[in-house]
Amino acid sequence: MDHPVIAALRADRDAHVQALEDWLRIPSVSTEPAHADDVRRAGQFALDALSGAGFDAAMHDTAGHPVVTASWCDAPGKPTLLVYGHYDVQPPDPIDLWRHGPFEPTIEGEVIVARGATDDKGQALALVRGIATYLATNGSLPINVKFLLEGEEEIGSPNLEPFIREHLDALAADVVLVSDCSQYGPEQPALTVSLKGLCYMQVTVTGPSKDLHSGSFGGAVENPGHVLCKLLSSLKDDDGRVTIPGFYDDVVDLTDAERAAIAELPFDADAYRESVGVPALHGETGFSTLERTGARPTLDVNGLLCGWTGEGAKTVLPSKAMGKFSMRLVANQDPDRIARLVTEHLESICPPTCTIVVEDLHGGKPVKVPTDSPFVAAAKRALAKGFGVEPVDIREGGSIPIVATFKEVLGIDTILMGLGQNDDNAHSPNEKFNLNDYHRGMETVVHLLDELAE
Amino acid sequence: MDHPVIAALRADRDAHVQALEDWLRIPSVSTEPAHADDVRRAGQFALDALSGAGFDAAMHDTAGHPVVTASWCDAPGKPTLLVYGHYDVQPPDPIDLWRHGPFEPTIEGEVIVARGATDDKGQALALVRGIATYLATNGSLPINVKFLLEGEEEIGSPNLEPFIREHLDALAADVVLVSDCSQYGPEQPALTVSLKGLCYMQVTVTGPSKDLHSGSFGGAVENPGHVLCKLLSSLKDDDGRVTIPGFYDDVVDLTDAERAAIAELPFDADAYRESVGVPALHGETGFSTLERTGARPTLDVNGLLCGWTGEGAKTVLPSKAMGKFSMRLVANQDPDRIARLVTEHLESICPPTCTIVVEDLHGGKPVKVPTDSPFVAAAKRALAKGFGVEPVDIREGGSIPIVATFKEVLGIDTILMGLGQNDDNAHSPNEKFNLNDYHRGMETVVHLLDELAE
Repeated sequence: MDHPVIAALRADRDAHVQALEDWLRIPSVSTEPAHADDVRRAGQFALDALSGAGFDAAMHDTAGHPVVTASWCDAPGKPTLLVYGHYDVQPPDPIDLWRHGPFEPTIEGEVIVARGATDDKGQALALVRGIATYLATNGSLPINVKFLLEGEEEIGSPNLEPFIREHLDALAADVVLVSDCSQYGPEQPALTVSLKGLCYMQVTVTGPSKDLHSGSFGGAVENPGHVLCKLLSSLKDDDGRVTIPGFYDDVVDLTDAERAAIAELPFDADAYRESVGVPALHGETGFSTLERTGARPTLDVNGLLCGWTGEGAKTVLPSKAMGKFSMRLVANQDPDRIARLVTEHLESICPPTCTIVVEDLHGGKPVKVPTDSPFVAAAKRALAKGFGVEPVDIREGGSIPIVATFKEVLGIDTILMGLGQNDDNAHSPNEKFNLNDYHRGMETVVHLLDELAE
Repeated sequence: MDHPVIAALRADRDAHVQALEDWLRIPSVSTEPAHADDVRRAGQFALDALSGAGFDAAMHDTAGHPVVTASWCDAPGKPTLLVYGHYDVQPPDPIDLWRHGPFEPTIEGEVIVARGATDDKGQALALVRGIATYLATNGSLPINVKFLLEGEEEIGSPNLEPFIREHLDALAADVVLVSDCSQYGPEQPALTVSLKGLCYMQVTVTGPSKDLHSGSFGGAVENPGHVLCKLLSSLKDDDGRVTIPGFYDDVVDLTDAERAAIAELPFDADAYRESVGVPALHGETGFSTLERTGARPTLDVNGLLCGWTGEGAKTVLPSKAMGKFSMRLVANQDPDRIARLVTEHLESICPPTCTIVVEDLHGGKPVKVPTDSPFVAAAKRALAKGFGVEPVDIREGGSIPIVATFKEVLGIDTILMGLGQNDDNAHSPNEKFNLNDYHRGMETVVHLLDELAE
């Protein structure tokens, strides 16, 4: 490897790890007001790293936690990359399941264990230090680079979209880079080519005006718990297909080539089944497990509450029954339209013996990255060089809502380049990040800058 | 009215009311250990009333609250009546909905308001004082009379069946009298000719071994909340019929005469619908509301619990889903057999993607009183004399499990002669008892002794 930046990165590995440890020690839990200063300190850490490396960097106050931006735009005629990351973390609970303090980063063999190790400080710092080392070693970057780092990702980024709308010119770019996801598996880097959207609903069925004695009134008054069960169970048929009229109208079907590529991914269904602990897998007829999780819309019951739920027997005919359920959406399903279809459908099938209220609690748009763009091609070449293995395309069942916002507000696509692993315990105790992934991630982003400059 | 006992009763009405007030002042809440002494004091009150009237009375300790028995058996060759009642009460909660202290009996117009007013101190004391006045006035009773009064009815009578089994000879009788129910309506006395039984089940559906992220795993792993909804909703069809194979096998159908009698009962379906606050009534096709509540077996969801039930959205694919449901049974359905049928059926329809555990939480046998017995005929004549109105037959959707025990252990039927009203707020705030019903109840039991002596 003759690349001087790669050589510089490799010479400095101890410092990279030490910097990550320093960042991970800051308990930047965005959801807890008591940690507001820590979130700001974590942002200051990023600001210092970027301004120290020669970026024009700034911290911006918002109605919540601050946003950090930075830019180096001295490559006229070259593309501009906007690097997104976040420096806030999930709460560490349940804290007693950690092997050590969640904010006492500990190296265990090949991995570093701490809250935020993979989500997202480890991945974000790989990008920051990779690019900073490029600038420090080379004196310039091959393309223009901007950074947008936030402290509110774990609480739904309430202030980021307004911030982007107020800084359209400063954030203008050709493509976004996000490393807040995973590789396909160990030694198998991947580009995430789609993210699902979300439509999260709540339905409340009301029967009698108060709880009744099921002996005195049972059989004469419709039971709202029974109606709720009937409504929810009818939303999916025995083939695992959602029955809401119009639900599949806007679904972009997988192409034969995409299905073939998914079929080629190494996947051990039995090991998967065992890891989730079910007697048998189940999903939409006609699709594989990876197609179901990655590329098909789904519907899940998320919560049920009705009547007596304590120990033993209480013979109540409940007044109300509540159900929460959500649909994961794929391109080009629109969460607002789906919420409307769901509401109309439930209202139309609710029996005249009850009343229902259907609420749209939360939504997010699906994202499909155009895989034929030069940016994606560049990212694949960079991953192949950085990891020494050709990357595969993967489809993520979860959502990263800000990616849809980038498309909508800035009009640009996102390169979703996961540096972590599926089993890194994001949001769980003993969150970890493989140091090898950290170092390869830095090298990969250096290659990415070169490839994007071509 | 020339009957000297009736005259004596009418001359003493203030004392009857005062005695009831004294009994109602004792907070004999059987479920609260702190009130154990109060329950005993309430039993002592009954003991004193009966022994003071010339009965051979005793209080018996049990593993729980005491049982009070009494007997007067100097009418050789005449039938023996066993009078059952209970002197414990429900907790008064929610206490802030009472117009005054629940144990400060207050006369409001025609009614006395206090916890226990109708359930069962008021009704039981009508029987006690009616019979005691008979003995005091007449020097003897026209039949043999025994009393069995317990302090654990509101907690399921755990010690009563063992007590009965240990005192078979002492409790031997020809028929039981229970006044722990209601008339059909104001100015419409009734004999309750059937009580439903109960089979109360709980089903737990388990899918993945822990809660999963519905984005990452949704669509590939069966959702136990969805399976629970499917299982429970399938237990009843669109005609309101229970679908469990064999469920109706042992049902004794109503005769044409019984259906005609039910159809003749005054019933305002619209007022009923409004009183429960539903947009429309609903039940088993082919049966009227009174047939459904009184004479047809039913199935109700009593509780549902699964996943996230707090505010807002949590995108969980839950590991477990729990449902409680119960069936009200009619003669000759057996709760143990029904529980077995339900368990087998649910296990057979549970998909292979989940596991289920089905539990039998509670059961009770249905009761059908033979309406052609001389005891029932005597009770009807007594009610007609006591209330001045011919009684009707009614069927109760609720259960009084001890009645099935009397049949099983003592081999005798029960006269179910409700003195209260449906709207007396048993188990609810501002429980009440109409003083007119109290006084007419005393006179009715006097007539009943005469009629049984014929």
